[in-house]
Amino acid sequence: MADGSDQRALQYEQTLMYGRYTQELGVYAKEEAARLRESGPRRSVSEQSRSLDLLEYKGRCAKCRICTVRCQKFLISRVGEDWIFLILLGLLMALVSWVVDFCIAICLQAQNWMYGGLDSNVFLQYLAWVTYPVVLITFSAGFTQILAPQAVGSGIPEMKTILRGVVLKEYLTFKTFVAKVIGLTCALGSGMPLGKEGPFVHIASLCAALLSKFMSLFGGIYEEPALVGIKNESRNIEMLAAACAVGVGCCFAAPIGGVLFSIEVTSTFFAVRNYWRGFFAATFSAFIFRVLAVWNRDEETITALFKTRFRLDFPFDLQELPAFAVIGIASGFGGALFVYLNRLIVQFMRKQKTINKFLMKKRLLYPALVTLLISTLTFPPGFGQFMAGKLTQKESLVTLLDNRTWAKQGIAEEFDYIGHAQAWKHPQVNVFVTLVLFIVMKFWMSALATTIPVPCGAFMPVFVIGAAFGRLVGESMAAWFPDGIHADGFIYPIVPGGYAVVGAAALSGAVTHTVSTAVIVFELTGQISHILPVMIAVILANAVAQSLQPSLYDSIIRIKKLPYLPELGWGHHEKYNIRVEDIMVRDVRYITLNCCYRDLHNVLTSGHLKTLALVETAESMILLGSIERAQLQSLLSQQLSRSRRLEYIRERAAAEKKRLSVVSNSDSDDGRQRASQEVRFQISTEESSFSPTRPAGQKPLKPALKRPSVVERPTELPTSPHDHSSIALKNLFCSSPDAEALEDDDVEDDMTLREIAEWEEKQLDEQVDFSTCKIDPAPFQLVERTSLHKTHTIFSLLGLDHAYVTSIGRLIGVVSLKELRKAIEGSVTVKGVKVRPPLASFRDSGTSSSETEATELHKLWDRHKSVSLPGDRTPSESDEKSQ
Amino acid sequence: MADGSDQRALQYEQTLMYGRYTQELGVYAKEEAARLRESGPRRSVSEQSRSLDLLEYKGRCAKCRICTVRCQKFLISRVGEDWIFLILLGLLMALVSWVVDFCIAICLQAQNWMYGGLDSNVFLQYLAWVTYPVVLITFSAGFTQILAPQAVGSGIPEMKTILRGVVLKEYLTFKTFVAKVIGLTCALGSGMPLGKEGPFVHIASLCAALLSKFMSLFGGIYEEPALVGIKNESRNIEMLAAACAVGVGCCFAAPIGGVLFSIEVTSTFFAVRNYWRGFFAATFSAFIFRVLAVWNRDEETITALFKTRFRLDFPFDLQELPAFAVIGIASGFGGALFVYLNRLIVQFMRKQKTINKFLMKKRLLYPALVTLLISTLTFPPGFGQFMAGKLTQKESLVTLLDNRTWAKQGIAEEFDYIGHAQAWKHPQVNVFVTLVLFIVMKFWMSALATTIPVPCGAFMPVFVIGAAFGRLVGESMAAWFPDGIHADGFIYPIVPGGYAVVGAAALSGAVTHTVSTAVIVFELTGQISHILPVMIAVILANAVAQSLQPSLYDSIIRIKKLPYLPELGWGHHEKYNIRVEDIMVRDVRYITLNCCYRDLHNVLTSGHLKTLALVETAESMILLGSIERAQLQSLLSQQLSRSRRLEYIRERAAAEKKRLSVVSNSDSDDGRQRASQEVRFQISTEESSFSPTRPAGQKPLKPALKRPSVVERPTELPTSPHDHSSIALKNLFCSSPDAEALEDDDVEDDMTLREIAEWEEKQLDEQVDFSTCKIDPAPFQLVERTSLHKTHTIFSLLGLDHAYVTSIGRLIGVVSLKELRKAIEGSVTVKGVKVRPPLASFRDSGTSSSETEATELHKLWDRHKSVSLPGDRTPSESDEKSQ
Repeated sequence: MADGSDQRALQYEQTLMYGRYTQELGVYAKEEAARLRESGPRRSVSEQSRSLDLLEYKGRCAKCRICTVRCQKFLISRVGEDWIFLILLGLLMALVSWVVDFCIAICLQAQNWMYGGLDSNVFLQYLAWVTYPVVLITFSAGFTQILAPQAVGSGIPEMKTILRGVVLKEYLTFKTFVAKVIGLTCALGSGMPLGKEGPFVHIASLCAALLSKFMSLFGGIYEEPALVGIKNESRNIEMLAAACAVGVGCCFAAPIGGVLFSIEVTSTFFAVRNYWRGFFAATFSAFIFRVLAVWNRDEETITALFKTRFRLDFPFDLQELPAFAVIGIASGFGGALFVYLNRLIVQFMRKQKTINKFLMKKRLLYPALVTLLISTLTFPPGFGQFMAGKLTQKESLVTLLDNRTWAKQGIAEEFDYIGHAQAWKHPQVNVFVTLVLFIVMKFWMSALATTIPVPCGAFMPVFVIGAAFGRLVGESMAAWFPDGIHADGFIYPIVPGGYAVVGAAALSGAVTHTVSTAVIVFELTGQISHILPVMIAVILANAVAQSLQPSLYDSIIRIKKLPYLPELGWGHHEKYNIRVEDIMVRDVRYITLNCCYRDLHNVLTSGHLKTLALVETAESMILLGSIERAQLQSLLSQQLSRSRRLEYIRERAAAEKKRLSVVSNSDSDDGRQRASQEVRFQISTEESSFSPTRPAGQKPLKPALKRPSVVERPTELPTSPHDHSSIALKNLFCSSPDAEALEDDDVEDDMTLREIAEWEEKQLDEQVDFSTCKIDPAPFQLVERTSLHKTHTIFSLLGLDHAYVTSIGRLIGVVSLKELRKAIEGSVTVKGVKVRPPLASFRDSGTSSSETEATELHKLWDRHKSVSLPGDRTPSESDEKSQ
Repeated sequence: MADGSDQRALQYEQTLMYGRYTQELGVYAKEEAARLRESGPRRSVSEQSRSLDLLEYKGRCAKCRICTVRCQKFLISRVGEDWIFLILLGLLMALVSWVVDFCIAICLQAQNWMYGGLDSNVFLQYLAWVTYPVVLITFSAGFTQILAPQAVGSGIPEMKTILRGVVLKEYLTFKTFVAKVIGLTCALGSGMPLGKEGPFVHIASLCAALLSKFMSLFGGIYEEPALVGIKNESRNIEMLAAACAVGVGCCFAAPIGGVLFSIEVTSTFFAVRNYWRGFFAATFSAFIFRVLAVWNRDEETITALFKTRFRLDFPFDLQELPAFAVIGIASGFGGALFVYLNRLIVQFMRKQKTINKFLMKKRLLYPALVTLLISTLTFPPGFGQFMAGKLTQKESLVTLLDNRTWAKQGIAEEFDYIGHAQAWKHPQVNVFVTLVLFIVMKFWMSALATTIPVPCGAFMPVFVIGAAFGRLVGESMAAWFPDGIHADGFIYPIVPGGYAVVGAAALSGAVTHTVSTAVIVFELTGQISHILPVMIAVILANAVAQSLQPSLYDSIIRIKKLPYLPELGWGHHEKYNIRVEDIMVRDVRYITLNCCYRDLHNVLTSGHLKTLALVETAESMILLGSIERAQLQSLLSQQLSRSRRLEYIRERAAAEKKRLSVVSNSDSDDGRQRASQEVRFQISTEESSFSPTRPAGQKPLKPALKRPSVVERPTELPTSPHDHSSIALKNLFCSSPDAEALEDDDVEDDMTLREIAEWEEKQLDEQVDFSTCKIDPAPFQLVERTSLHKTHTIFSLLGLDHAYVTSIGRLIGVVSLKELRKAIEGSVTVKGVKVRPPLASFRDSGTSSSETEATELHKLWDRHKSVSLPGDRTPSESDEKSQ
């Protein structure tokens, strides 16, 4: 896996690792703001023309018109309101969810119809049974691959990353939306064990992003386009968080569970102020989703998706609780195993070179092969008869949640396996064997199927497996205690369906590391009577699974190498022992306020941090702010730009001329030639005149930010500032030499390469003028003694990428996400053992640190005294100011 | 209300405003850590003696002993684990909840028994009906007043404040726990319309705090006592958040709703990593709470608290949804009215001087009078017959959630009002009239009753009123559509009980501004079939209520003047327009690194900020850190301390002696007297010898921090440093002059007052030595252009009290909670109108601000150049460093 030498493996990895993070959201928002600002005036012109039209219009219905226009204006101004947006989002997602469900149902019916129609010939039947899903899955994989490879997979891991403040490229575009919806419909229509939950989170986010774009076309949302950037930044995050809730909510018609699940799965810190957004949109979406079902005559009224009919008076006995606890613990192990298995398959596929070589040749072969394998095994007349292969996912879930007992001893023959439940009955084989086979087969099939590069989730398959496991335990209990456990009075037989509910919640909770699957289960079944068993099982499952494996989504985040910050976990006492000073990078790249361009160049060539610290002087190290790399690059390129060089030539020529005018009297032959040159220069100087405050060569900062290639390239820079080719350097930093060349075309660039090199060397020695540079004047600062726990909290709260460590104004280190991740994971893997990072011993003696603080302060103070002494400032001056 | 002249009003206010915030949690944690560190060695000594005992013990069961001790040690080491703590907390709270419920039930039974036993005489019956609650409430009020006035009221507002990071004095002590539990039991036992939810949140937090203290006695929790402070700080907050969930969870046996409700009510930003804690503890607590009911033979198995039996197949018709929406909107208005009414009563009681004078004379008169009024009106043979006055709160809720229809047209006589439901039937009056009377009367009664100074909540009364309102709408619908609305096929009659469920959730949601009441309602009734109507009604109710009034808890926070940060609200577009520069205080109090003690003194006397900014110089204004006021006070007091003055006397005497020894030869008479004095001085110098690094007069910082009076007092300081009495100044800053006087008793303080004044003046002119002072090296910084929205987020995320506004290292302003609150509330009240703060116009011209930034940078740069010039540093030096 680690050897990147195999090109094919890399290719394959690229399909999984599409989403490298490229830009901070803030930058993106600023660009958007700038774009909108530019388009602003155009819009207002069209508005003006409209009002002019209005004035021209005369007659009796003028009033009506005015009224209409006002209403229209009012409506447009309302369009920006959050609740309108949320209602539209909910409506849209409910429609999408319903249409997708409808299409999936048709696809599955078609397969069933083909299979049923060919019952004369088993071979033909098999062909139909197998070909249909293979075609669908291959189409889905190919379609998404061609249209938008970002649509592959669940979407929850990516949304988690996006909500952390990272912008994933091309992740929220219309193309991705189309690819995801169509790909998902085909994938689920094939009958493979795949889910629609994860993709729906992504689709809802896509919807939100597109809707947001669409509504911003109306323009009435914001008053000042200049502020759009700031607004969009926080508003987008808020809306995406709500969209995630809508995604889950309209998928299962579970508004509350949807909100909670999306919070647990995507957020580290949740703003309670956004709570209502999620609830509002998810409720509306779930409502419309179910209303569509009523409208389509599927249901008589709004009910739960998988309604159960357990008895209300005595849902379960207190003495059944140990069995529920067992389900919980077993599900915990099962969930961890599922995550492990899923990761193992992905890693195995990457590692195996021979397999890879073969599979990579035809990219669609892997999905087809996996589908072939799975559908062959579920072929009902074949092995499928032992594992209810005939049933679709939905049908199996309905039968598993049935409130009747399948294997009641003695009265087994009474039970007549109505409808789909027949599939579980096999003449030769016990129902227990069927269930065990179903669980085992579906387990690895689901883990395998979710690695297919199509839009798919893993929640629903896991949910069904959990339900089957619960049903198995329940049936066993029913067989063990045919008359129920309760001793005195009435007989309350055991309800295996209740066990299925508990199992479903527990296993899905274990795989996703969430507690809210409990709520989803209540909303899905429409019954809350098993609340305590479900809660107990889910919590136990979570406890076990979280101590063994990361959640499925975190596992995918790691596989895809998305930027992430690991959680601190359940027991994190050892984290309190680590402090920022133990993990920070002490060798900080910085630039001083009075540095020259050569320093800038050196700093830019020696590392590739995205932001650099700006300190007062190298001795004081007082942190003043941070500057983005691109800003510094533009500063440097501006200093070495062609226009400045041409100016230099002009100045030199002018100086030459002056000198010549003194000499001209004595030497007239040469004088004429020089004069003609001089005139040419004078004209050109006027043409390319620029104000002294803002040189023409100064590029606006946007292009540099927009083009990631500029940020990526500097590693190619020669490391030594002296032995490089100056032209190369200039070309590298000048963003558009061609344009400049055109502009100053009439100035003769008669400098030789050596002259240019000399000129550049001289330029590099000049002091940097930061006045045109955008500085972040308050980068986030930590103290040496901040605990890892607190650092983690702050990083995840504010979505930081890095933070400077300061001590009384002095910059002493920097901590980035990388160091933090290392520190947390380092101590997580050696859990139980008391991990003391090497540097931790420095601060064990209680007060030593505060003493060093004082010493440092002293140093600063002494330095300051020595500096201020020659500044001949009287003490009375500072007295007056501080009063 | 605002005129503080009336002393009685103030007294009364004190009972409501007990919880002023006094200390930051961090300080508290540090003190605790120091305390534990001191007690650490003692403990280890006792442990050593124990192991010595072990070695002494000989014989065959030595192995057993060793094993036991090991087990014990293991168990003790496990005690610190979170889950053990949470289980214990859950268990404890379930027991408390159950016992409180049990006692309340007995109290209510007793009242019923008395009332029933005296049915021969109406007057005696009335006396018994009225006296009993009056006595109980008066006892409750008196008991809490005497033992712990902090126990009064709900507790949720205070917990919200505590979870923001503020320490409320005496709020989490054992005394408060006892007062709250006993007071609550008596208050609820009286049958007044009061709830137990809010107090249970407080009780659970008390339990958590006490349990945490108790478990820290075991000592095995943490390895290094020096780190306890850091751990406690974050751990306490985490545990308190979990405790709030437990409080709600075990009160209603609603684990999920409990967690969500506590999050919504107490947090602004919620750490998802704490989620499991709440679920774990609340589930365990709810489980034990219900198991106790089973064990007590109240229930056959674990079921919901107020189980409903609505039909499952067709819970409600789609066409009933408008009625549910009406309930939601009406509840929204009702909830806002309730909050308004409650606040109005409190403010009215404070304002009315004559009433206050009378009531304040006898503090218990107000509760008694209110109770008398309410119980008189509910007297069943009197007015109570028209409003089901006979029923307790629990009984009325059970009857309201009944799944039968009370007022079915035509078949009204069929319905035989079984059990408690009879109370709603009146021979002369329609059931609609009874319901309306019940709603109206209970509404103001609840609003009034919750102002009584006893431990009480308002959730349950509001819940019951909501249920009654829902039932009213439901009965009306049932009367309107006797055969249900559904047109085709079967007849599905309307279920008024379902409306009651919706109404209860909507009204309680509106009053508390939460959505999770929906979940609580499902868990309370054990049925989730009405999920969509409930969600729709709750969201509509919230939308209406939130736009009209703050939540009940926020309203109480304002009444009690607790520190708070208002929410930004639903639509907060105008907040994006305001920036930090518009609201910040530009005139920041600061001290410079090279200031003298006189500056310190001036700064301390001229304002009373809790922390002061430390800048490099008054010109550069580079922010280096912040120092707490108490630290500066101790610095100043140390400088002017008696011990330093005595030292000065000694030194002066020594100098005198030297001078004398030169003169002594010539003047022998005087010499003898002087010599004797000198000897005395020499002895004393040896006795009170101190190291030069830490003068004896330097107080540890704790006392100053612990005594809030020191922090409060400086307003008494004379404003001019010159015309004050020096002795007064010295006494003010020297925390314990008596102790010092004893210590240096043998040194004769022969300075006259004038000399002392002179000496102090000289001392004040010395430069401050910050080396012994604790400086926060990285106070939180914002930029001028940070939006109000972002500032709010950061303040509530990090629980900040104030933040400095810097621009490229320079301190330019400060924003505290107060300014932020003003800015948010200012623009909230003038909603709709575009609010532009006066200063906002300065930055409308797009790039102007970045230009000023650049100019400032330039200034700094120029200054720096001028400073560094005399420092004769070669440019090559900085080159080397920056490379």
